[in-house]
Amino acid sequence: MKKSFGAQTLIFPTPVWCVGSYDKDGKPNVMTIAWGGICCSKPPAVTISLRRATYTYHNIMARGAYTISVPSHEQARAADYFGMASGKRENKFEKAGLRPAKSDLVDAPYVAEFAMVLECRVMHTYEIGLHTQFIGEILDVKVDEAALDENGKPDMAKVAPFVYAPELQHYFRIGDAVGPAFKIGKELF
Amino acid sequence: MKKSFGAQTLIFPTPVWCVGSYDKDGKPNVMTIAWGGICCSKPPAVTISLRRATYTYHNIMARGAYTISVPSHEQARAADYFGMASGKRENKFEKAGLRPAKSDLVDAPYVAEFAMVLECRVMHTYEIGLHTQFIGEILDVKVDEAALDENGKPDMAKVAPFVYAPELQHYFRIGDAVGPAFKIGKELF
Repeated sequence: MKKSFGAQTLIFPTPVWCVGSYDKDGKPNVMTIAWGGICCSKPPAVTISLRRATYTYHNIMARGAYTISVPSHEQARAADYFGMASGKRENKFEKAGLRPAKSDLVDAPYVAEFAMVLECRVMHTYEIGLHTQFIGEILDVKVDEAALDENGKPDMAKVAPFVYAPELQHYFRIGDAVGPAFKIGKELF
Repeated sequence: MKKSFGAQTLIFPTPVWCVGSYDKDGKPNVMTIAWGGICCSKPPAVTISLRRATYTYHNIMARGAYTISVPSHEQARAADYFGMASGKRENKFEKAGLRPAKSDLVDAPYVAEFAMVLECRVMHTYEIGLHTQFIGEILDVKVDEAALDENGKPDMAKVAPFVYAPELQHYFRIGDAVGPAFKIGKELF
Protein backbone atom coordinates (compact mmCIF):
# COMPACT_ATOMS: atom_id res chain seq x y z
CA MET A 1 0.00 0.00 0.00
CA LYS A 2 1.14 3.49 -0.81
CA LYS A 3 0.36 6.53 1.34
CA SER A 4 -0.74 9.70 -0.49
CA PHE A 5 1.15 12.90 0.35
CA GLY A 6 -0.93 15.12 -1.93
CA ALA A 7 0.16 17.72 -4.48
CA GLN A 8 3.59 18.86 -3.32
CA THR A 9 7.24 19.16 -4.26
CA LEU A 10 8.27 15.89 -2.67
CA ILE A 11 10.78 13.74 -4.52
CA PHE A 12 14.12 12.13 -3.62
CA PRO A 13 16.76 13.33 -4.21
CA THR A 14 17.20 16.99 -5.14
CA PRO A 15 20.60 18.66 -5.58
CA VAL A 16 22.25 21.29 -3.39
CA TRP A 17 23.78 23.83 -5.74
CA CYS A 18 25.01 27.35 -5.03
CA VAL A 19 24.12 29.93 -7.68
CA GLY A 20 26.53 32.83 -8.13
CA SER A 21 25.59 36.24 -9.56
CA TYR A 22 26.62 39.92 -9.47
CA ASP A 23 24.24 42.65 -8.40
CA LYS A 24 23.90 46.05 -10.11
CA ASP A 25 26.85 47.42 -8.13
CA GLY A 26 29.04 44.44 -8.92
CA LYS A 27 28.70 42.89 -5.47
CA PRO A 28 29.03 39.09 -5.70
CA ASN A 29 26.15 37.06 -4.32
CA VAL A 30 25.46 33.37 -3.92
CA MET A 31 22.22 31.53 -3.20
CA THR A 32 21.55 27.85 -2.61
CA ILE A 33 18.88 26.06 -4.63
CA ALA A 34 17.47 22.55 -4.80
CA TRP A 35 15.02 23.17 -7.64
CA GLY A 36 17.08 22.48 -10.76
CA GLY A 37 18.71 19.93 -13.03
CA ILE A 38 20.33 19.29 -16.38
CA CYS A 39 17.74 20.00 -19.10
CA CYS A 40 19.47 19.50 -22.46
CA SER A 41 22.53 17.74 -23.89
CA LYS A 42 22.98 19.85 -27.06
CA PRO A 43 23.50 22.64 -26.30
CA PRO A 44 24.52 21.51 -22.82
CA ALA A 45 22.10 23.28 -20.51
CA VAL A 46 21.07 23.33 -16.87
CA THR A 47 17.91 24.79 -15.38
CA ILE A 48 17.50 26.49 -12.01
CA SER A 49 14.25 27.84 -10.59
CA LEU A 50 14.08 31.04 -8.56
CA ARG A 51 11.34 33.11 -6.98
CA ARG A 52 11.06 36.70 -8.18
CA ALA A 53 11.43 37.79 -4.55
CA THR A 54 15.07 36.70 -4.47
CA TYR A 55 18.03 39.00 -4.96
CA THR A 56 19.57 36.47 -7.33
CA TYR A 57 16.54 36.56 -9.65
CA HIS A 58 17.06 40.24 -10.43
CA ASN A 59 20.84 39.86 -10.66
CA ILE A 60 20.55 37.13 -13.28
CA MET A 61 17.82 38.99 -15.19
CA ALA A 62 20.13 42.01 -15.45
CA ARG A 63 23.40 40.19 -16.20
CA GLY A 64 22.11 37.25 -18.26
CA ALA A 65 24.53 34.89 -16.53
CA TYR A 66 25.04 32.73 -13.48
CA THR A 67 27.35 30.07 -12.13
CA ILE A 68 26.65 26.91 -10.17
CA SER A 69 29.18 25.92 -7.49
CA VAL A 70 28.75 22.44 -6.00
CA PRO A 71 29.48 22.37 -2.25
CA SER A 72 30.85 19.31 -0.46
CA HIS A 73 29.14 17.97 2.65
CA GLU A 74 31.96 19.56 4.65
CA GLN A 75 30.79 22.91 3.27
CA ALA A 76 27.13 22.23 4.12
CA ARG A 77 27.00 24.91 6.81
CA ALA A 78 27.89 27.64 4.29
CA ALA A 79 25.53 26.20 1.67
CA ASP A 80 22.68 26.12 4.18
CA TYR A 81 23.39 29.73 5.13
CA PHE A 82 23.45 30.75 1.43
CA GLY A 83 19.93 29.37 1.15
CA MET A 84 18.56 31.38 4.07
CA ALA A 85 20.29 34.78 4.00
CA SER A 86 19.51 37.45 1.38
CA GLY A 87 22.13 39.32 -0.63
CA LYS A 88 19.92 42.38 -0.25
CA ARG A 89 21.11 42.71 3.31
CA GLU A 90 24.31 40.69 3.64
CA ASN A 91 27.56 40.01 1.86
CA LYS A 92 27.19 36.25 2.03
CA PHE A 93 30.69 35.46 0.74
CA GLU A 94 32.27 37.58 3.50
CA LYS A 95 30.05 36.15 6.22
CA ALA A 96 30.90 32.59 5.20
CA GLY A 97 34.60 33.34 4.82
CA LEU A 98 34.59 32.18 1.19
CA ARG A 99 36.04 33.90 -1.87
CA PRO A 100 34.15 34.94 -5.01
CA ALA A 101 36.12 34.15 -8.17
CA LYS A 102 35.19 36.07 -11.32
CA SER A 103 34.27 33.79 -14.21
CA ASP A 104 36.33 34.50 -17.30
CA LEU A 105 33.45 33.35 -19.54
CA VAL A 106 30.30 34.87 -18.07
CA ASP A 107 29.37 37.91 -16.00
CA ALA A 108 29.04 36.05 -12.69
CA PRO A 109 31.20 34.88 -9.78
CA TYR A 110 31.62 31.37 -8.41
CA VAL A 111 32.73 30.06 -5.02
CA ALA A 112 36.50 29.57 -5.31
CA GLU A 113 36.63 26.97 -2.52
CA PHE A 114 33.94 24.69 -4.00
CA ALA A 115 35.38 21.85 -6.10
CA MET A 116 32.99 21.79 -9.10
CA VAL A 117 31.80 24.88 -10.95
CA LEU A 118 29.58 25.50 -13.99
CA GLU A 119 29.56 28.79 -15.91
CA CYS A 120 26.23 29.50 -17.59
CA ARG A 121 24.78 32.02 -20.03
CA VAL A 122 21.00 32.47 -19.83
CA MET A 123 19.30 31.06 -22.96
CA HIS A 124 15.66 31.32 -21.88
CA THR A 125 13.50 32.18 -18.91
CA TYR A 126 10.11 30.56 -18.37
CA GLU A 127 7.48 31.64 -15.86
CA ILE A 128 6.05 28.49 -14.29
CA GLY A 129 4.22 29.93 -11.28
CA LEU A 130 5.83 31.01 -8.01
CA HIS A 131 9.15 30.08 -9.61
CA THR A 132 10.79 31.22 -12.83
CA GLN A 133 13.03 28.81 -14.70
CA PHE A 134 16.39 30.04 -15.94
CA ILE A 135 17.76 27.83 -18.70
CA GLY A 136 21.52 28.29 -18.76
CA GLU A 137 23.81 27.14 -21.53
CA ILE A 138 26.82 25.52 -19.87
CA LEU A 139 29.91 27.19 -21.33
CA ASP A 140 32.42 25.40 -19.14
CA VAL A 141 32.69 23.00 -16.22
CA LYS A 142 35.71 23.42 -13.96
CA VAL A 143 36.83 20.98 -11.26
CA ASP A 144 39.60 21.30 -8.66
CA GLU A 145 42.67 19.27 -9.62
CA ALA A 146 42.66 17.95 -6.05
CA ALA A 147 39.16 16.52 -6.63
CA LEU A 148 40.11 14.42 -9.69
CA ASP A 149 40.61 10.65 -9.74
CA GLU A 150 43.58 8.77 -11.22
CA ASN A 151 41.99 9.07 -14.71
CA GLY A 152 41.68 12.83 -14.45
CA LYS A 153 37.89 12.67 -13.98
CA PRO A 154 35.94 14.24 -11.12
CA ASP A 155 36.00 11.89 -8.14
CA MET A 156 32.62 11.54 -6.43
CA ALA A 157 34.15 11.01 -2.99
CA LYS A 158 36.41 14.06 -3.37
CA VAL A 159 33.82 16.44 -4.86
CA ALA A 160 31.62 14.93 -2.11
CA PRO A 161 28.35 16.64 -3.06
CA PHE A 162 25.24 16.18 -0.95
CA VAL A 163 21.52 16.19 -1.61
CA TYR A 164 18.44 17.76 -0.09
CA ALA A 165 15.38 15.78 0.96
CA PRO A 166 12.14 17.80 0.71
CA GLU A 167 9.56 17.07 3.44
CA LEU A 168 12.35 15.75 5.70
CA GLN A 169 14.21 19.10 5.27
CA HIS A 170 17.47 17.29 5.76
CA TYR A 171 20.73 16.91 3.85
CA PHE A 172 22.33 13.57 2.98
CA ARG A 173 25.76 12.61 1.64
CA ILE A 174 26.38 10.66 -1.52
CA GLY A 175 27.53 7.18 -0.55
CA ASP A 176 28.98 4.06 -2.11
CA ALA A 177 29.06 3.19 -5.79
CA VAL A 178 26.15 1.07 -7.04
CA GLY A 179 27.52 0.09 -10.45
CA PRO A 180 28.27 1.32 -13.96
CA ALA A 181 25.48 2.97 -15.95
CA PHE A 182 24.53 1.59 -19.36
CA LYS A 183 25.97 -1.73 -18.23
CA ILE A 184 24.37 -3.32 -15.15
CA GLY A 185 20.98 -3.50 -16.91
CA LYS A 186 22.27 -5.26 -20.03
CA GLU A 187 21.44 -8.71 -18.73
CA LEU A 188 17.74 -7.85 -18.96
CA PHE A 189 17.80 -7.51 -22.76
CA MET B 1 43.82 25.12 -9.64
CA LYS B 2 40.71 23.99 -11.48
CA LYS B 3 40.78 21.82 -14.60
CA SER B 4 38.46 22.83 -17.43
CA PHE B 5 36.18 20.12 -18.83
CA GLY B 6 34.62 22.33 -21.50
CA ALA B 7 30.97 22.83 -22.45
CA GLN B 8 29.21 19.66 -21.35
CA THR B 9 26.48 18.24 -19.14
CA LEU B 10 28.75 17.49 -16.21
CA ILE B 11 27.44 18.21 -12.73
CA PHE B 12 27.10 16.15 -9.53
CA PRO B 13 24.64 14.75 -8.71
CA THR B 14 21.76 14.04 -11.10
CA PRO B 15 18.72 11.95 -10.17
CA VAL B 16 17.73 8.51 -11.46
CA TRP B 17 14.01 8.63 -12.11
CA CYS B 18 11.82 6.29 -14.13
CA VAL B 19 9.19 8.00 -16.30
CA GLY B 20 5.98 6.05 -16.94
CA SER B 21 3.69 6.57 -19.94
CA TYR B 22 1.13 4.77 -22.13
CA ASP B 23 1.57 4.41 -25.87
CA LYS B 24 -1.22 4.81 -28.42
CA ASP B 25 -2.33 1.21 -27.90
CA GLY B 26 -2.35 1.55 -24.14
CA LYS B 27 0.86 -0.41 -23.63
CA PRO B 28 2.66 0.81 -20.49
CA ASN B 29 6.21 2.00 -20.95
CA VAL B 30 8.91 3.26 -18.60
CA MET B 31 12.13 5.12 -19.35
CA THR B 32 14.92 6.22 -17.03
CA ILE B 33 16.11 9.82 -17.06
CA ALA B 34 18.72 11.86 -15.23
CA TRP B 35 17.91 15.21 -16.84
CA GLY B 36 15.22 16.66 -14.58
CA GLY B 37 14.34 18.29 -11.29
CA ILE B 38 11.72 20.16 -9.31
CA CYS B 39 11.02 23.45 -11.10
CA CYS B 40 8.25 25.22 -9.16
CA SER B 41 6.68 25.16 -5.68
CA LYS B 42 3.26 26.67 -6.59
CA PRO B 43 1.91 24.90 -8.50
CA PRO B 44 4.17 22.02 -7.48
CA ALA B 45 5.93 21.03 -10.69
CA VAL B 46 8.76 18.82 -11.88
CA THR B 47 10.57 18.99 -15.20
CA ILE B 48 11.96 16.10 -17.22
CA SER B 49 13.86 16.41 -20.49
CA LEU B 50 13.44 13.93 -23.33
CA ARG B 51 14.78 13.58 -26.85
CA ARG B 52 12.17 13.52 -29.61
CA ALA B 53 13.64 10.18 -30.73
CA THR B 54 12.33 8.43 -27.61
CA TYR B 55 9.11 6.43 -27.45
CA THR B 56 8.22 8.17 -24.21
CA TYR B 57 8.34 11.62 -25.86
CA HIS B 58 5.52 10.74 -28.24
CA ASN B 59 3.53 8.94 -25.55
CA ILE B 60 3.57 11.98 -23.27
CA MET B 61 2.82 14.37 -26.13
CA ALA B 62 -0.28 12.30 -26.97
CA ARG B 63 -1.51 11.63 -23.43
CA GLY B 64 -0.46 14.86 -21.67
CA ALA B 65 0.63 12.95 -18.60
CA TYR B 66 3.47 11.00 -17.03
CA THR B 67 4.57 9.54 -13.76
CA ILE B 68 7.95 9.44 -12.05
CA SER B 69 8.82 6.30 -10.07
CA VAL B 70 11.93 6.50 -7.89
CA PRO B 71 13.94 3.25 -7.91
CA SER B 72 16.02 2.09 -4.96
CA HIS B 73 19.65 1.09 -5.43
CA GLU B 74 18.49 -2.52 -5.17
CA GLN B 75 16.39 -1.87 -8.27
CA ALA B 76 19.28 -0.27 -10.17
CA ARG B 77 19.55 -3.10 -12.69
CA ALA B 78 15.96 -2.55 -13.85
CA ALA B 79 16.39 1.23 -13.87
CA ASP B 80 19.55 0.95 -15.95
CA TYR B 81 17.75 -1.34 -18.40
CA PHE B 82 14.82 1.13 -18.62
CA GLY B 83 17.32 3.77 -19.73
CA MET B 84 18.77 1.65 -22.55
CA ALA B 85 15.90 -0.36 -24.06
CA SER B 86 13.18 1.23 -26.22
CA GLY B 87 9.46 0.72 -25.72
CA LYS B 88 9.17 0.68 -29.51
CA ARG B 89 10.60 -2.82 -29.52
CA GLU B 90 10.19 -4.20 -26.01
CA ASN B 91 7.69 -4.44 -23.19
CA LYS B 92 10.10 -3.18 -20.56
CA PHE B 93 7.84 -3.88 -17.58
CA GLU B 94 7.54 -7.55 -18.61
CA LYS B 95 11.26 -7.94 -19.29
CA ALA B 96 12.14 -6.52 -15.88
CA GLY B 97 9.47 -8.53 -14.08
CA LEU B 98 7.84 -5.37 -12.70
CA ARG B 99 4.18 -4.40 -12.66
CA PRO B 100 2.64 -1.28 -14.21
CA ALA B 101 0.03 0.31 -11.92
CA LYS B 102 -2.51 2.62 -13.53
CA SER B 103 -2.56 6.08 -11.96
CA ASP B 104 -6.02 7.06 -10.77
CA LEU B 105 -5.21 10.74 -11.38
CA VAL B 106 -3.43 10.91 -14.74
CA ASP B 107 -3.34 8.88 -17.93
CA ALA B 108 -0.04 7.13 -17.19
CA PRO B 109 1.28 4.05 -15.36
CA TYR B 110 3.87 3.88 -12.60
CA VAL B 111 6.13 1.09 -11.36
CA ALA B 112 4.19 -0.63 -8.58
CA GLU B 113 7.32 -2.02 -6.90
CA PHE B 114 9.11 1.36 -6.63
CA ALA B 115 8.62 3.06 -3.27
CA MET B 116 8.05 6.72 -4.29
CA VAL B 117 5.80 7.81 -7.14
CA LEU B 118 4.75 11.18 -8.59
CA GLU B 119 1.72 11.61 -10.85
CA CYS B 120 2.06 14.52 -13.26
CA ARG B 121 -0.10 16.40 -15.75
CA VAL B 122 1.81 18.21 -18.50
CA MET B 123 1.54 22.00 -18.03
CA HIS B 124 4.05 23.13 -20.70
CA THR B 125 6.60 21.78 -23.13
CA TYR B 126 9.68 23.79 -24.10
CA GLU B 127 12.09 22.98 -26.91
CA ILE B 128 15.61 23.60 -25.62
CA GLY B 129 17.69 21.86 -28.31
CA LEU B 130 18.26 18.11 -28.58
CA HIS B 131 15.98 17.79 -25.55
CA THR B 132 12.43 18.97 -24.93
CA GLN B 133 11.40 19.92 -21.43
CA PHE B 134 8.11 18.59 -20.09
CA ILE B 135 6.88 20.64 -17.15
CA GLY B 136 4.55 18.45 -15.13
CA GLU B 137 2.21 19.64 -12.42
CA ILE B 138 2.53 17.20 -9.51
CA LEU B 139 -0.99 16.06 -8.66
CA ASP B 140 0.04 13.55 -6.01
CA VAL B 141 3.06 11.92 -4.40
CA LYS B 142 2.62 8.38 -3.15
CA VAL B 143 5.07 6.47 -0.96
CA ASP B 144 5.03 2.83 0.17
CA GLU B 145 3.89 2.49 3.78
CA ALA B 146 6.89 0.19 4.28
CA ALA B 147 9.21 3.05 3.27
CA LEU B 148 7.95 5.52 5.90
CA ASP B 149 9.75 6.48 9.12
CA GLU B 150 8.26 6.58 12.61
CA ASN B 151 6.78 10.02 11.88
CA GLY B 152 4.99 8.80 8.77
CA LYS B 153 7.42 10.61 6.45
CA PRO B 154 9.41 9.01 3.61
CA ASP B 155 12.56 7.44 5.04
CA MET B 156 15.67 8.14 2.94
CA ALA B 157 17.30 4.81 3.83
CA LYS B 158 14.13 2.86 2.97
CA VAL B 159 13.27 4.69 -0.26
CA ALA B 160 17.02 4.31 -0.89
CA PRO B 161 17.24 6.32 -4.12
CA PHE B 162 20.50 6.61 -6.00
CA VAL B 163 22.08 9.19 -8.26
CA TYR B 164 23.83 9.25 -11.61
CA ALA B 165 27.25 10.79 -12.18
CA PRO B 166 27.71 12.14 -15.71
CA GLU B 167 31.23 11.73 -17.15
CA LEU B 168 31.88 8.86 -14.71
CA GLN B 169 28.74 7.08 -16.05
CA HIS B 170 28.30 5.46 -12.69
CA TYR B 171 25.54 5.22 -10.09
CA PHE B 172 26.00 6.06 -6.40
CA ARG B 173 23.84 5.47 -3.33
CA ILE B 174 22.60 8.16 -1.00
CA GLY B 175 24.55 7.89 2.25
CA ASP B 176 24.53 9.25 5.77
CA ALA B 177 22.66 12.30 7.01
CA VAL B 178 24.64 15.57 6.99
CA GLY B 179 22.29 17.70 9.08
CA PRO B 180 18.99 19.60 9.10
CA ALA B 181 18.34 22.15 6.35
CA PHE B 182 17.49 25.74 7.28
CA LYS B 183 19.26 25.13 10.55
CA ILE B 184 22.95 24.17 10.34
CA GLY B 185 23.78 27.46 8.60
CA LYS B 186 22.10 29.70 11.20
CA GLU B 187 25.31 30.28 13.13
CA LEU B 188 26.68 32.25 10.18
CA PHE B 189 24.07 35.01 10.51
